[in-house]
Amino acid sequence: MPGGFEASGVAAGLKSTGALDLALVVNRGPLGSAAVVFTSNRAKANPILWSQQVIADGVASAIVLNSGGANCFTGAEGFQTTHATAEEVAAVLGVSAGDVLVCSTGLIGDQLPREKVLAGVRAAARALTPDGGEAAAQAIMTTDSVPKRSVVQRDGWTIGGMAKGAGMLAPGLATMLVVLTTDAELDSTELDEALRAATRVSFDRLDSDGCMSTNDQVTLLASGASGVRPSLSDFTGALTELCTDLAKQLQADAEGASHDIDIRVVNAASETDAVEVGRSVARNNLFKAAVFGNDPNWGRVLAAIGTTTAEFDPYAVDVSMNGVRVCASGAPDQSRELVDLSPRRVDVLIDLKAGSATATVLTNDLTHDYVHENSAYSS
Amino acid sequence: MPGGFEASGVAAGLKSTGALDLALVVNRGPLGSAAVVFTSNRAKANPILWSQQVIADGVASAIVLNSGGANCFTGAEGFQTTHATAEEVAAVLGVSAGDVLVCSTGLIGDQLPREKVLAGVRAAARALTPDGGEAAAQAIMTTDSVPKRSVVQRDGWTIGGMAKGAGMLAPGLATMLVVLTTDAELDSTELDEALRAATRVSFDRLDSDGCMSTNDQVTLLASGASGVRPSLSDFTGALTELCTDLAKQLQADAEGASHDIDIRVVNAASETDAVEVGRSVARNNLFKAAVFGNDPNWGRVLAAIGTTTAEFDPYAVDVSMNGVRVCASGAPDQSRELVDLSPRRVDVLIDLKAGSATATVLTNDLTHDYVHENSAYSS
Repeated sequence: MPGGFEASGVAAGLKSTGALDLALVVNRGPLGSAAVVFTSNRAKANPILWSQQVIADGVASAIVLNSGGANCFTGAEGFQTTHATAEEVAAVLGVSAGDVLVCSTGLIGDQLPREKVLAGVRAAARALTPDGGEAAAQAIMTTDSVPKRSVVQRDGWTIGGMAKGAGMLAPGLATMLVVLTTDAELDSTELDEALRAATRVSFDRLDSDGCMSTNDQVTLLASGASGVRPSLSDFTGALTELCTDLAKQLQADAEGASHDIDIRVVNAASETDAVEVGRSVARNNLFKAAVFGNDPNWGRVLAAIGTTTAEFDPYAVDVSMNGVRVCASGAPDQSRELVDLSPRRVDVLIDLKAGSATATVLTNDLTHDYVHENSAYSS
Repeated sequence: MPGGFEASGVAAGLKSTGALDLALVVNRGPLGSAAVVFTSNRAKANPILWSQQVIADGVASAIVLNSGGANCFTGAEGFQTTHATAEEVAAVLGVSAGDVLVCSTGLIGDQLPREKVLAGVRAAARALTPDGGEAAAQAIMTTDSVPKRSVVQRDGWTIGGMAKGAGMLAPGLATMLVVLTTDAELDSTELDEALRAATRVSFDRLDSDGCMSTNDQVTLLASGASGVRPSLSDFTGALTELCTDLAKQLQADAEGASHDIDIRVVNAASETDAVEVGRSVARNNLFKAAVFGNDPNWGRVLAAIGTTTAEFDPYAVDVSMNGVRVCASGAPDQSRELVDLSPRRVDVLIDLKAGSATATVLTNDLTHDYVHENSAYSS
């Protein structure tokens, strides 16, 4: 972890399995600057409503995250649980509750057991160490099969990050639960600018299952402990690299997926068009099911593109799958028999021939395991 | 079938199974007025491009439909096949090719075997009878398990209809392949007005899998053979009843579905809002998978609604499932244990408390069989 931070992950008893379920990350300074992007879902969980207030002044001392329940649509009692959690963190750390960010993830509509959360906070505070990142990354997992961590190092400063997310994985302005820490010296305005730039082309380009969460939050905390002040463009570049790596880790661990599909849209009239086209394919169940069956059904790609408002001529579009151009100018080109979809990684290249903008949207296939995982268990 | 019409369905050899795959419906008059609504997918199949020209003058003598291939994204050769099909129908019936509508359905991106289609047209013309509706309804089936037909009778006049569609079932302005016939006396302007009014609240409210077809076409033909001239409002009411019945038949036969889900949105600020909210839930894979697992996961309903632009307060919304109000004013109400989702029919009632508009969107669950059917076979 970057200098100036401590973290921990404990089992507070929120998960019936007894697994780690409460994480704490503390910024020991000297700086306490922070920036956050939140889900754009209008149905926001109680910890989102709380954290939006906390971050208003660009300062945060700590973030506490639980994975045993979303605390969303739980009424006034649910909000009071979030508030009490922040107060408990503040009391044990000797900071202000107004500087404590809170995140939750899990089933929507159930109350969190407040006393277990508060006891978990006390245990997590006792467990804080500079090496606690791994335990914290485990404690925020829900249906994730592996923890997701990443780090980038530059000349004298470092950014680290952890993420969780496997379903309800179609971020709007933000995504999933992600905590990023850096020992670089940057104020909250700079952090905010860098964070929005990085998430726009990383997490916001991930659309595994078209379902946007109520609890997404990406938090960036800076301690300044390195004493190094990088340029904003250097920092943004490094942060984007880190966020892209975490987004790919999320894609690779998406619920039930058997393929990671990168939809690359080129020669679009605008980046907005490219993203709209990529997302329309990423959300097309018929296409996603075809990829699961190793079927290069490019007609379903074109049928999806046809539902967008992007600038293009349906009879100019080329589509390639894993390097084989199966459709040229809206007509059959090479045989679909030549396309090998057996590897996990699938590359879909869509040439709109309408401009020079480009975007890549990351998605997954639609599988029996996805249906099983999301029908057999409430989450 | 209403008076003035003949129909047939034959096996032209387009389906490898040898099943019926080419249908012909002929309007013997005295009137030849017609109206059509087409898919709003911007990627349109060749028969759509042809039929849009045919209907421009509001007159059609016949419609020929094949189920052995979509003839979409098949280039100039594909368009010539559609043109030749209309010419063949015109030749055998002694009508103008410019009055022959054409529909196709099946795999996108493969050429239709033109000679088989033309031979099929000749066989279909020989098989025409006033009782040919059942064979025609069978001949337009693809992954449908049953033919869909419906009839409404009024004082001296009748409307009949057939439909096909089981996947790629999220009509935009139109839907699926549907042929409606009536012996009422109405001109093409009246037919067009009635057809747009009826489809707007029937087929356009069906969203089984969120995937819009490239080949959807709903055709209404009037023979005037009854000699009765109903009021436009009486006719529109009867037509809406017929279209709604056909839409429900499509929902009940959707690919792999184990539940028919009616999403009723009430007290919306506008009908547009109600439809947007209903469709957001209908397209939420997590909610659809939960219903497959008989899990009344209402949090996924609210997470879907939160992605819309509809007017509502997330903390005012009520949600009921099969008569049990599980969420009141955005907080847990009755226990989800009380909800029985074992019947095929599921009723989801969403009270937005933002106005007085209402809409119902029809959808299905997301099942192992849907994934299997759309991954194991190209269609």
